[in-house]
Amino acid sequence: MRTIDWVDGAVELVDQTRLPDECVMLRIETVADLIDAIRRLAVRGAPALGVAGALGVVLAAGDQDAIARLRAARPTAVNLGWGVDQAAAHLSQGQQAVLKAALRIRDDDIAACEAMGKRGADLLEGDRLRIMTVCNTGGLAAVERGTALGVVQTLHERGRLAEVLALETRPLLQGARLTTWELARMGAPHRLIADSAGPYLLAKGGIDAVLIGADRIAANGDTANKIGSYALALGAERAGVPFIVVAPETTIDQATPSGEHIEIEDRGADEIVTIRGRRVAPEGTRAVNPAFDVTPHDLITAIVTDKRVIRP
Amino acid sequence: MRTIDWVDGAVELVDQTRLPDECVMLRIETVADLIDAIRRLAVRGAPALGVAGALGVVLAAGDQDAIARLRAARPTAVNLGWGVDQAAAHLSQGQQAVLKAALRIRDDDIAACEAMGKRGADLLEGDRLRIMTVCNTGGLAAVERGTALGVVQTLHERGRLAEVLALETRPLLQGARLTTWELARMGAPHRLIADSAGPYLLAKGGIDAVLIGADRIAANGDTANKIGSYALALGAERAGVPFIVVAPETTIDQATPSGEHIEIEDRGADEIVTIRGRRVAPEGTRAVNPAFDVTPHDLITAIVTDKRVIRP
Repeated sequence: MRTIDWVDGAVELVDQTRLPDECVMLRIETVADLIDAIRRLAVRGAPALGVAGALGVVLAAGDQDAIARLRAARPTAVNLGWGVDQAAAHLSQGQQAVLKAALRIRDDDIAACEAMGKRGADLLEGDRLRIMTVCNTGGLAAVERGTALGVVQTLHERGRLAEVLALETRPLLQGARLTTWELARMGAPHRLIADSAGPYLLAKGGIDAVLIGADRIAANGDTANKIGSYALALGAERAGVPFIVVAPETTIDQATPSGEHIEIEDRGADEIVTIRGRRVAPEGTRAVNPAFDVTPHDLITAIVTDKRVIRP
Repeated sequence: MRTIDWVDGAVELVDQTRLPDECVMLRIETVADLIDAIRRLAVRGAPALGVAGALGVVLAAGDQDAIARLRAARPTAVNLGWGVDQAAAHLSQGQQAVLKAALRIRDDDIAACEAMGKRGADLLEGDRLRIMTVCNTGGLAAVERGTALGVVQTLHERGRLAEVLALETRPLLQGARLTTWELARMGAPHRLIADSAGPYLLAKGGIDAVLIGADRIAANGDTANKIGSYALALGAERAGVPFIVVAPETTIDQATPSGEHIEIEDRGADEIVTIRGRRVAPEGTRAVNPAFDVTPHDLITAIVTDKRVIRP
């Protein structure tokens, strides 16, 4: 199954808001519908957003306004704008050239995730590994295989995985809803934990590595990723556990010198004061809801890309 | 309003599982019902558990088995067993003496929280303070005023509080449900955040102190408190923000030399895979659910009790 693909003249993607209750494919034929799907996180994950951006340019059929709106649909992940730009660079060569470029981005993502999985699994030492991870960085965040969870998948295929501890990932519970669903499908042993339990369970010992994805990596190695990544990095540092970022080269943004220059999306109070449609705080409660945080490069043991291992 | 009290021959307490939707008083006439209320967190918070333990001995009317079951209803908070023991020490003097001892514990808690509020507010410097806190440590965790949130209340009464950032406190959302409810009632400005955003917002700056309660403080200052406290302590240390524990002297357990000797309650998978009755993870998902963590004393700036300020 592909998370996102081009099928018979339209974008088809898994509606991730409905997992794990049901696995439904959406067929998207306009840029407006694609932007809506991106904003409400029906499609999410930096690599998948890169492919969505590129395929969206095909849907736009030369409409520059639509392309600009698509590019700005979410601010933090660099891949969305990158995917848009890569495809849009072929606009002068006609619609077929744009489609060809977009499909190449899709195929490159499939190959990159395969490469990251192997490189990450090679980097880690030992058998019976216990891995901690946050958010969803599996096939649902990319096209076929994922980034950090792609490494987990490769470890599992090689018989080297003992267990994954998956953070539930409030507010939108990508860990509880998506990562557990993917791990169950691949038959990998896993347990779910509250986000705040991550640093404590690292301190208790027995975890071999923390693996996370990335939405944008600054030139100095500072990494924006799902909120909670920074807390895990602090916990990993104190516990002496390797903290490893897994992301394609396209997530490295040389135009952003350091983390302080990364725009962090605040997604508003609703996601905090309600959970899956159920109100959990008194009426009128305000909230701060940064969707991402920035982990300084000094807390990162290694960045594994499809091309190399970087030690910031 | 008192969170817990002795009224006409029975224990009356606020059913905290039903907040913030409704504020309902439970009338409890047997030890079995009290144990049930404690286990399902209808009454929770270390000081309130101390009072519940003492009043439960009155309900037990000399039944040693019931007293032993009550004492073991929850393992981490030292106050429950302490309250039981304080009241039970008067069993040989008759039921009236037991009741008198239990009511003294109630009154001592009211006075201790008042004293902690003042001492904590005196300790903090500056006006327009922005405070971060986790779980609920207000009047709902004690009898009338709280511990860490008691300090916040005193700051607010003195006109020195700018804002509270309250962690929602998964899995049971005491921050989202209870702390916001109390802060709204006292008219104190506040915003709710996901637990994992705490360390990141500390790094971003503008927070003057982290204030937390405690369920058990070991002799060396290591502090067991709601899961997520340790992650905040790591974030506070890196950001150079004071990390302050507020708890009555009765929470200090000289019989426990250090944090590694504190039993941490695991409350099972249900609280993680469901939220307020709504399933959020695939059927069959396993979980780890430590209700508390231990913050090493080297990460604690000060412990404020009703008697003194300790700098571990």
